[in-house]
Amino acid sequence: MITRTVDLRSDTVTKPTEAMRAAMATAVVDDDVLHHDPTALCLETEMARITGKEAALFVPSGTMGNLISVLVHCDTRGSEVILGDNSHIHIYENGGISTIGGVHPRTVKNNQDGTMDIDLIEAAIRDPGGVLVYPTTRLICLENTHANSGGRCLSVEYVDKVGELAKKHGLKLHIDGARIFNASVALGIPVHRLVQAADSVSVCLSKGLGAPVGSVIVGSRSFIAKAKILRKTLGGGMRQVGILCAAALVAVQENVVKLEGDHKKAKILAEGLSQIKGIKVDVASVETNIIYFDIDESSKFTAEKLCEYLEEHGILVTQEGPLRIRIVLHHQISESDVQYTLSYFQHALSGVQDQNGI
Amino acid sequence: MITRTVDLRSDTVTKPTEAMRAAMATAVVDDDVLHHDPTALCLETEMARITGKEAALFVPSGTMGNLISVLVHCDTRGSEVILGDNSHIHIYENGGISTIGGVHPRTVKNNQDGTMDIDLIEAAIRDPGGVLVYPTTRLICLENTHANSGGRCLSVEYVDKVGELAKKHGLKLHIDGARIFNASVALGIPVHRLVQAADSVSVCLSKGLGAPVGSVIVGSRSFIAKAKILRKTLGGGMRQVGILCAAALVAVQENVVKLEGDHKKAKILAEGLSQIKGIKVDVASVETNIIYFDIDESSKFTAEKLCEYLEEHGILVTQEGPLRIRIVLHHQISESDVQYTLSYFQHALSGVQDQNGI
Amino acid sequence: MITRTVDLRSDTVTKPTEAMRAAMATAVVDDDVLHHDPTALCLETEMARITGKEAALFVPSGTMGNLISVLVHCDTRGSEVILGDNSHIHIYENGGISTIGGVHPRTVKNNQDGTMDIDLIEAAIRDPGGVLVYPTTRLICLENTHANSGGRCLSVEYVDKVGELAKKHGLKLHIDGARIFNASVALGIPVHRLVQAADSVSVCLSKGLGAPVGSVIVGSRSFIAKAKILRKTLGGGMRQVGILCAAALVAVQENVVKLEGDHKKAKILAEGLSQIKGIKVDVASVETNIIYFDIDESSKFTAEKLCEYLEEHGILVTQEGPLRIRIVLHHQISESDVQYTLSYFQHALSGVQDQNGI
Amino acid sequence: MITRTVDLRSDTVTKPTEAMRAAMATAVVDDDVLHHDPTALCLETEMARITGKEAALFVPSGTMGNLISVLVHCDTRGSEVILGDNSHIHIYENGGISTIGGVHPRTVKNNQDGTMDIDLIEAAIRDPGGVLVYPTTRLICLENTHANSGGRCLSVEYVDKVGELAKKHGLKLHIDGARIFNASVALGIPVHRLVQAADSVSVCLSKGLGAPVGSVIVGSRSFIAKAKILRKTLGGGMRQVGILCAAALVAVQENVVKLEGDHKKAKILAEGLSQIKGIKVDVASVETNIIYFDIDESSKFTAEKLCEYLEEHGILVTQEGPLRIRIVLHHQISESDVQYTLSYFQHALSGVQDQNGI
Repeated sequence: MITRTVDLRSDTVTKPTEAMRAAMATAVVDDDVLHHDPTALCLETEMARITGKEAALFVPSGTMGNLISVLVHCDTRGSEVILGDNSHIHIYENGGISTIGGVHPRTVKNNQDGTMDIDLIEAAIRDPGGVLVYPTTRLICLENTHANSGGRCLSVEYVDKVGELAKKHGLKLHIDGARIFNASVALGIPVHRLVQAADSVSVCLSKGLGAPVGSVIVGSRSFIAKAKILRKTLGGGMRQVGILCAAALVAVQENVVKLEGDHKKAKILAEGLSQIKGIKVDVASVETNIIYFDIDESSKFTAEKLCEYLEEHGILVTQEGPLRIRIVLHHQISESDVQYTLSYFQHALSGVQDQNGI
Repeated sequence: MITRTVDLRSDTVTKPTEAMRAAMATAVVDDDVLHHDPTALCLETEMARITGKEAALFVPSGTMGNLISVLVHCDTRGSEVILGDNSHIHIYENGGISTIGGVHPRTVKNNQDGTMDIDLIEAAIRDPGGVLVYPTTRLICLENTHANSGGRCLSVEYVDKVGELAKKHGLKLHIDGARIFNASVALGIPVHRLVQAADSVSVCLSKGLGAPVGSVIVGSRSFIAKAKILRKTLGGGMRQVGILCAAALVAVQENVVKLEGDHKKAKILAEGLSQIKGIKVDVASVETNIIYFDIDESSKFTAEKLCEYLEEHGILVTQEGPLRIRIVLHHQISESDVQYTLSYFQHALSGVQDQNGI
Repeated sequence: MITRTVDLRSDTVTKPTEAMRAAMATAVVDDDVLHHDPTALCLETEMARITGKEAALFVPSGTMGNLISVLVHCDTRGSEVILGDNSHIHIYENGGISTIGGVHPRTVKNNQDGTMDIDLIEAAIRDPGGVLVYPTTRLICLENTHANSGGRCLSVEYVDKVGELAKKHGLKLHIDGARIFNASVALGIPVHRLVQAADSVSVCLSKGLGAPVGSVIVGSRSFIAKAKILRKTLGGGMRQVGILCAAALVAVQENVVKLEGDHKKAKILAEGLSQIKGIKVDVASVETNIIYFDIDESSKFTAEKLCEYLEEHGILVTQEGPLRIRIVLHHQISESDVQYTLSYFQHALSGVQDQNGI
Repeated sequence: MITRTVDLRSDTVTKPTEAMRAAMATAVVDDDVLHHDPTALCLETEMARITGKEAALFVPSGTMGNLISVLVHCDTRGSEVILGDNSHIHIYENGGISTIGGVHPRTVKNNQDGTMDIDLIEAAIRDPGGVLVYPTTRLICLENTHANSGGRCLSVEYVDKVGELAKKHGLKLHIDGARIFNASVALGIPVHRLVQAADSVSVCLSKGLGAPVGSVIVGSRSFIAKAKILRKTLGGGMRQVGILCAAALVAVQENVVKLEGDHKKAKILAEGLSQIKGIKVDVASVETNIIYFDIDESSKFTAEKLCEYLEEHGILVTQEGPLRIRIVLHHQISESDVQYTLSYFQHALSGVQDQNGI
């Protein structure tokens, strides 16, 4: 019998808080398709302010936020986008930019820290003179924090440099900022500064911030005007959406401050794991709320079996490969949950039998 | 100073009821992308039951519901869909089935009652032998009630006939059932019977039923499995979406019974309008909650000016042409609102000056 | 045993003449992808001159010519084209503008003479104010001569009016001029005048003009520059294409003058058919080289059986429906062929048994 | 004054031979869209035989051949193709598979010999279990010889292994065999054996084989049936195309034997270049008819200037980078041309002034 659940699969699993539920129950709403829902307007205004952009738009998901952003920047047939070969857009969004949007992706190798080498990005930009055989490069995408690199942060210097490169070549820069608040908190740089070089940013409200649903994309007024049309085309225009925006506003107001705690808990967990024989984890690379680690090949456990063992004790993590596991911290994980989790890892890998005889 | 608002622009403008807000505040939710939100599952199960289909999927909007449905049935490059030239999908959904989905539409004339002649549909089906120059017909779409025809109902006999035609030619049948509950109530036919011949149906929860956000698509299990992938691709996968589904469940449970009242109010309003000199309205064609009417060319009013006049008195309606206006009834319009509305129409067109000197 | 073949299925069936073969055998050619094949350049210059446009581009087919033209004018996602519901692009080109190009078609009814009513075209233009639910109208397409209307000619006045309408609304006008030379000859109006209002025209060289392969699209220099990129993307860029262009140049120089003869032969054939009991043909509507006619329902023949009968005597025509047949004249049909053909129609329908006992 | 032209830019620059011109002048042709041009049929039958496949289809270009092949294998929305990051399809075909076909490319690093590591290919295949966030892998593309790797050959063992991998995962294998005859000659392996593992191959006739225009794609009968539809959609269906096929037949019959000579001349040229101070060329990697080489950074020449110098003496080569040049041999380059070319490289880089004072 499981007496406790510690859900570390993703920071998307958080439940809405009482404050969010109260906000949803009392939100002033209107038809956001016919004109503008006032609570949606309020959230969008606030997100534009935080990110230092002219305008914002609420969308049902980060996937739609990225899809719309790429498609608005690449609104002409024959467009190409440069993005990381390990980026969320390239790996986890169904290839929608091509299969739905007809945009051709050109990938550049993601380094272990989530960056792409600036000179490799530049080399990937198509020579406009070769337009007869080349698609037209229109956009560069960054991801901050970079999920598949373990939630590592792109520095403001790096982002600025990519922004300069984009400007030099007449390209747009989009940042997949699903976890941009995590980057901001970890780097001690305000979000608006961190995305200053970007023409658009998608920001997720239902990851670390804990809102039940939604992302926001931000950019210039003309970008958002085009984005709004495309949101309708894709079916992301929602009626009394203020319900969701009310919860998201609470998330933005109350939960940004909790991210630092998530990062600390991640560090504690990573350090704890690093002291367990049979687990290889690079503690230094845990910069925010995500931990990737590997099980020794010599271990009696595969990732699959270890996940099963943990699940029997209410601990949910994500298997990422035969020997690889991902853990994500969020505000509904307590320090006690972290210790509980570590104790079961210890049990499992130290060979000490627990009460279930494993 | 406006002391009263009577919003007759659409049945999408309703505000969530107290019961819906309470349901949202207490909804049991989970990450509907990682696995299944229990409240979403509950709503989907209920909608599958009501429509007599194997499975259902909650989507953010009717536009996404239709887009996904058409794209799932037309998943192969080179597909064509037959649909009404005055249908919502063809006129009001940004052409997304082509611009996003690459599906070629072949339109058939919509009659005044929203039907398309069966023999014209059949004539529009491409001969498979001409595959070298013809796209491949894969789908027929109906719309019930048919919005642009004034919310008129397709009879079960008609729908069944189109279903037989589709089967005969190996085609699928999708029903845009944004207002299928209105049709069901008006015809006295259960929804499941009315859509029996359909392979898929999209049903709107945020129109007459009054839920804040969302539609549901229903169909076979394999259809819904494909729809779920496409929903993710389009960015319609939402996390703790049970919040919205909780309100939608209340809508389904409490508001279907109110639709008959909406239809009665529409009839009263239409009859009242028909007695005003200067207004032409076909009362018999008002079968559900939508009224289209025309202003006499000899009138001192254009539709634009009449809309402005009404708006000054808090009455919101939709201009559809130089002399054409649309009114939609819903459960938050009272009989008193109907009389209030009629009185201002009377004022305006009878030439009796009101206090604003118009 | 067939002793004679009279191929009236289409004007695409002509064989290259001796002059064309000689031209191909001696054409000066170069790599038209790396730079410009001199003979292609020569043909393109000549076609630009004839059509009164800045530039021209040779393409492998009329389908590609239309596809490129529509896609260049509609290069932005969310575009809509207005075109005839009975037009070649809509009916016979695989729906490629949508399935390959993502362009949304909005059809307007083609009248029996191939025109669309100007006010219906204007009504189909989307209100830019409704951009949130409407695709953006960017293009109107005409077809001259109009194939499915029996090769009827659009008058210069009509084309000019549609051109004015397009300009008024900021739209482009494309003419599918596969048989524009037939229209020019029949109307006695030079091609350049007939297409003066158009932003682009596709002209077929392998129909009445008799070249073995190819069409040319014409328009502004910037249109052609974009068209050239798209031609490469679609795979229509060809290397020593001067071979084909050499034949096409001969076609343009030698065969335009033969079109008048084709029209005369069509008239003779139509008049002959009109005098055969059991055939209904509108002789007045035969303006160029195409004849559509119907078999009386009371006839012992269906179109299928009549086609079979004719084929047994070497006469090839096209069945268009259960009782409908199409005949197309071209420069390789002699007056004797016309009489031969008429005699077999006569035999068949008069019930006079021929030597095969039919 | 240039007295001699040595065009080494590509093997696409060859002019049709007298035999080809004679064949074109006498080719028996018919309308290949309405039924089948006999000469096209003859060529397609011959190419199917040579490649050991069931059926073949003539297309206007290699770009269309690859585009059709990828799109036929990926005919369902949401498809992904695995291909080399330095492959012709990915780099030089305008991104058409995405921008026209909506196919999502996943690139794997091309090694210097044109291969991709088998384990990297396997790692790039999407887990079908992740279908909610992953596109569906449907195809692997190889390129043989691999142009951007300097025309290097993929061995039959390598191709077979990739074929096995494809089969194991239920994927198709397409080979861009634009220069498959060069690979066949260089490896001493018949074409049919070299492409045995492939589901489809595109073969260029207007590169080393010297036909004026065209490629052929080969595969199963059902593949070719689908390809034919798509060829029409793209506008690649041509009427009396036998003209071009007649020349291509001569190319196949007469010019395959010349490829060995091209390879020898390439070797001689590469060896000559390797002995010129200031040029770095890997002679061993010159396996067929393509040479890539680099100019020393210490040289007084950039690639641009060297190309200009050579052009002044009638020698045309392709600049590939600031210090990089590409040379391609073909059957219309004589051994004397090779020596002539080498002498001007020698002049230029040895600092010996030529008569123009450079």
